[in-house]
Amino acid sequence: MDDPVLLTGASGRVGAAILDGLADEYDWRLFDRTPPTGDPPGEVVVGDVTDDDAVGAAVEGTGAVIHLAGDPRPEAAWESVWHNNVDGTQTVFEAAVEAGVGKVAFASSNHAVGAYEDERAPRVYRSDSGFRLDGTELPRPGNLYGVSKAAGETLGRYYHDRHDLSVVCVRIGNLAAERPPEDYERGQAMWLSYRDCAHLFDRCLRSEYGYEIVYGISDNDRKYYSLERAREALDYEPRDNSAEYDSEDEPKDGNGSSDER
Amino acid sequence: MDDPVLLTGASGRVGAAILDGLADEYDWRLFDRTPPTGDPPGEVVVGDVTDDDAVGAAVEGTGAVIHLAGDPRPEAAWESVWHNNVDGTQTVFEAAVEAGVGKVAFASSNHAVGAYEDERAPRVYRSDSGFRLDGTELPRPGNLYGVSKAAGETLGRYYHDRHDLSVVCVRIGNLAAERPPEDYERGQAMWLSYRDCAHLFDRCLRSEYGYEIVYGISDNDRKYYSLERAREALDYEPRDNSAEYDSEDEPKDGNGSSDER
Repeated sequence: MDDPVLLTGASGRVGAAILDGLADEYDWRLFDRTPPTGDPPGEVVVGDVTDDDAVGAAVEGTGAVIHLAGDPRPEAAWESVWHNNVDGTQTVFEAAVEAGVGKVAFASSNHAVGAYEDERAPRVYRSDSGFRLDGTELPRPGNLYGVSKAAGETLGRYYHDRHDLSVVCVRIGNLAAERPPEDYERGQAMWLSYRDCAHLFDRCLRSEYGYEIVYGISDNDRKYYSLERAREALDYEPRDNSAEYDSEDEPKDGNGSSDER
Repeated sequence: MDDPVLLTGASGRVGAAILDGLADEYDWRLFDRTPPTGDPPGEVVVGDVTDDDAVGAAVEGTGAVIHLAGDPRPEAAWESVWHNNVDGTQTVFEAAVEAGVGKVAFASSNHAVGAYEDERAPRVYRSDSGFRLDGTELPRPGNLYGVSKAAGETLGRYYHDRHDLSVVCVRIGNLAAERPPEDYERGQAMWLSYRDCAHLFDRCLRSEYGYEIVYGISDNDRKYYSLERAREALDYEPRDNSAEYDSEDEPKDGNGSSDER
């Protein structure tokens, strides 16, 4: 892609994973309320994702958008996710259409479907559970943060159907850099390694699609999210699997884990 | 039901249909920004559905809620539906849980799934189209109003899963009092007569359910919405069918038609 790629929420955890793997692959425009630390691999634009003018200016002249910005806390209050995640996401989709950008990858979340798992936990986290979500199911958020992410997916569907925008919604699992979380079956079921995360968003930028909902996790034995749509629509080829980590090993670095950014 | 029923948006068109048929069946508390005209069949509370305190006070002591309030215009701007429909609906669900009310019937809309029909119109409006939506499909709104209604449905799912609230989302079709719209296949496919509307919301108040999405239309030959869930979950027994009206007849009264209220 010759035109710059706009990365909203660039200073967050998912942004870090993407830039870790793809810093040199694209001409980045990095949008966040807080500038990235260190030596950012692209133009930095400081702004709020709910600010129509700031987002409009940031989108101008880009070839695609990866939209990560928003309140990333599963326990966030309604007021915050309603503003930052629901309205912020509408602002980004609207600005993309307005600027003639053809493609938006939207960071949705496992929390959009958290209630399916709650009534099946911990059994669902085991490789023989036989339960699988594939992205065709209706949302069942486990929290208001998840409601906001499901609303973002529906906004994406509208902007695809009505404005012909290519939209992929990535229901991101449990992002952790070097290794899956220990003693946390849920985190092992939905682990997304940094390199698989970067590869997945690379595929979101390079592939051709209309509207897709995919799960963003590594190829974990414990997974209960199907990777089929990500493989088929995006040619996603994950390289990691939480089962390959012995829980007795020490973590390779000091990175903790968190859901999404 | 002995406790009062809170009807938000009581002064709108759906409210009129409900009160037309059920004025004497319940002890009504009528909530709206604009007081109902004429002689309202219950206590009138003037307030805005996005006002936490006003809604909290209105819900207090009621046995169930029918939530109709919101911007009813399919062409409404994002700012309005984001405030009035998305935030307003969260306010109502939250207040219901807070007050210990067990049941909320939410007026969703055919516009939550409008894009399915757009790519099949006008064929889909004919009785031999063979196409049917049943409420298990993912939302595909045809406008931002529809996005806001789909978000309300997802909020309902959350409040059911997490807070054990009984929630039914009624995707209301084309409400018109005495007869279906003429020369308007779409309106004939999704006609909801006043008496079927009142009967349907009566069933929403009297039935036992967990979480349901149902279509709110009369039993029209032209329908492409399934009535199966409404019949099964709510014992809905519609009496009207737009096919029974000869398009040569004069309308029986001066009522126009509109989508929903």
